[in-house]
Amino acid sequence: MIYLDQAATSFPKIKEVQDAVIDCMNHCTNANRSTSVTSLNASRLIYQTRKLIKEYFHVPQDGCVVLNSGNTESINTCIKGILKKGDHVITTYAEHNSVLRPLYQLEKANIITLSITSPTVENIKKHLQKKTKMIIVTHSSNVTGEIYPIAEIGKLAHEHGILMMSDIAQSAGHLLIDMEKMNLDILCFSGHKGLLGNSGVGGFCLAQSIEMEPLISGGTGMDSFNHFQSDYYPEHVEAGTRNMTGIASLKAGVFYLMKYHDEKSKYTNELVELLYDGLKNIPQVVLYGDFKERTPILAFNIQGMDSFQVADLLNNKYDIAIRCGTHCAPLMHQHLNTVKSGIVRTSLSFMNTKEEIQFFIKAIQEISEGNYDN
Amino acid sequence: MIYLDQAATSFPKIKEVQDAVIDCMNHCTNANRSTSVTSLNASRLIYQTRKLIKEYFHVPQDGCVVLNSGNTESINTCIKGILKKGDHVITTYAEHNSVLRPLYQLEKANIITLSITSPTVENIKKHLQKKTKMIIVTHSSNVTGEIYPIAEIGKLAHEHGILMMSDIAQSAGHLLIDMEKMNLDILCFSGHKGLLGNSGVGGFCLAQSIEMEPLISGGTGMDSFNHFQSDYYPEHVEAGTRNMTGIASLKAGVFYLMKYHDEKSKYTNELVELLYDGLKNIPQVVLYGDFKERTPILAFNIQGMDSFQVADLLNNKYDIAIRCGTHCAPLMHQHLNTVKSGIVRTSLSFMNTKEEIQFFIKAIQEISEGNYDN
Repeated sequence: MIYLDQAATSFPKIKEVQDAVIDCMNHCTNANRSTSVTSLNASRLIYQTRKLIKEYFHVPQDGCVVLNSGNTESINTCIKGILKKGDHVITTYAEHNSVLRPLYQLEKANIITLSITSPTVENIKKHLQKKTKMIIVTHSSNVTGEIYPIAEIGKLAHEHGILMMSDIAQSAGHLLIDMEKMNLDILCFSGHKGLLGNSGVGGFCLAQSIEMEPLISGGTGMDSFNHFQSDYYPEHVEAGTRNMTGIASLKAGVFYLMKYHDEKSKYTNELVELLYDGLKNIPQVVLYGDFKERTPILAFNIQGMDSFQVADLLNNKYDIAIRCGTHCAPLMHQHLNTVKSGIVRTSLSFMNTKEEIQFFIKAIQEISEGNYDN
Repeated sequence: MIYLDQAATSFPKIKEVQDAVIDCMNHCTNANRSTSVTSLNASRLIYQTRKLIKEYFHVPQDGCVVLNSGNTESINTCIKGILKKGDHVITTYAEHNSVLRPLYQLEKANIITLSITSPTVENIKKHLQKKTKMIIVTHSSNVTGEIYPIAEIGKLAHEHGILMMSDIAQSAGHLLIDMEKMNLDILCFSGHKGLLGNSGVGGFCLAQSIEMEPLISGGTGMDSFNHFQSDYYPEHVEAGTRNMTGIASLKAGVFYLMKYHDEKSKYTNELVELLYDGLKNIPQVVLYGDFKERTPILAFNIQGMDSFQVADLLNNKYDIAIRCGTHCAPLMHQHLNTVKSGIVRTSLSFMNTKEEIQFFIKAIQEISEGNYDN
């Protein structure tokens, strides 16, 4: 199989990640729950992972790293935990349903009001209100790979005393993130995409302590007689046993990226360029997105074909995995006018090869020309 | 290390679980997100795991199995998703903070009123009100291993049209659970304790569809243009990429238990009996709990010693892992009058040996008599 769906999840998991997971199953139990060697191993693993992520994303000194089940839990925790009755939120059409749906829930419950606009400073500026509490903009589109000016939007937010939150599910691991320089108060990340870990792990970083009601509360192994979660971050929003093998996989992934980022990133960009050059010369192919700076995603359609049809042919005739449909990003597809057809999304990583890309381009050429047995 | 903290997490992970995790990292990606072989492998794995758990817990035909990050997410989802303004809830002093803290949050927000009593039919009956919406009783104490009459309490609940929910974190894998016969509407389980999987996975079973607002909403790979989660269960309350290696580990664990339950259970009970017989003959040891039927937990203290002191000695001098302190069960410790000392909790599984138990008894004997170099 040729796997060009790395934006869904990294695959296969690199050896370093697999080794870390196996090691964890044999040497770690629960963090902060006992003084045994295996429990201390778990505590140490969590501590090291937080430290590594703090360094990797340039989280400010006073900030913290929360580890949980993933980006969706992170976004829900921040949106539902921070926003209160009467707050106004600005977000964009480029967001994933993991941002839109929690916001729609709060809007429906008459807790917040919501403005949705395009991911530019100018347009967001137009929607500012006195009661605007938070601006949420994804760092890059999960459909097209386009990158949005979150640092500038963050600057605007801070000029107005508004919290700036960004979903970096698609950019983490591919683009260098500097939370401080990018003016971000909250960044939510997924552990299993560009960061190379297993699914079921992710988290969020806070630039400073932000008052929030825990979405999930329960046992924390500390302060057990308190009716509520401890006030200390990150424990304030981390209840229940952590996903230890997930955290081990995340740590191994981030460690790998910190070591090899430049080399791997350069190679992945070469693959994207190769793919772009190949696809743009096929007359039936319509490419989506801006091709200056991007994450390793290329989105396109073949004229007259539904994206599902293309995906099926790629899978059945060529054993190539891509992602068709609408990628849980409804407003982006409305914006691109691709609600009906969906989009063929290819997403790459350094684990792909030039031969795979060449084979894929040839497949798209054949499909475009109708040269396949169906 | 002698590991007698199986109620915290099963350790080490059995070979079948480890193999399933490795296989998953190499052959599964995201379920329901593509038509590729690896995505279909993931969908199949989720389907098979739901089916196996449905069979294992005797979930009624119309019921469903939700898979998520664990028992704490499950309990929060059900409590915060189902309960509405004005509802009354009855629960017990035997509950873990994963039940108590979400309830305290709703009580503090003036959404629910709460009665906390002892886990008996008679006492719960006394607290019934017209507006009682839910009764929540743990199947067994995570401190003492005592088992509570949830089937009878469930019968009482159903006679009054009240939802019956049980936390089976400690009983699952040790006791046979029959959701239908036990009159349970909701059961919340952890995947990494008695069910032998990795931490970061668990879920809940519903006997029938129960209206609830999703605690976590986001992408589901389906119905993307709907502002809200699909109405279908379990997808209604499953947003974001699932923990695939976690689910693989859970499936392998449950499959193993279904095959070997009787044999392993018999052996574990022999170990508990051996431990009980050994401890009860040590004059300084105070045992807690009823010793008729129980999960493989034995809780005790050594007169005049703090549980932390005993745990440290066991760890440092004997390389034995147990769990001291208050086990995130504050009301249980108030009930047992062990708030200050905590309790030494030993929890066993079929992975332990008779030699380990004998060595442990000897260690407790020595510590009780002060025969250790400190």
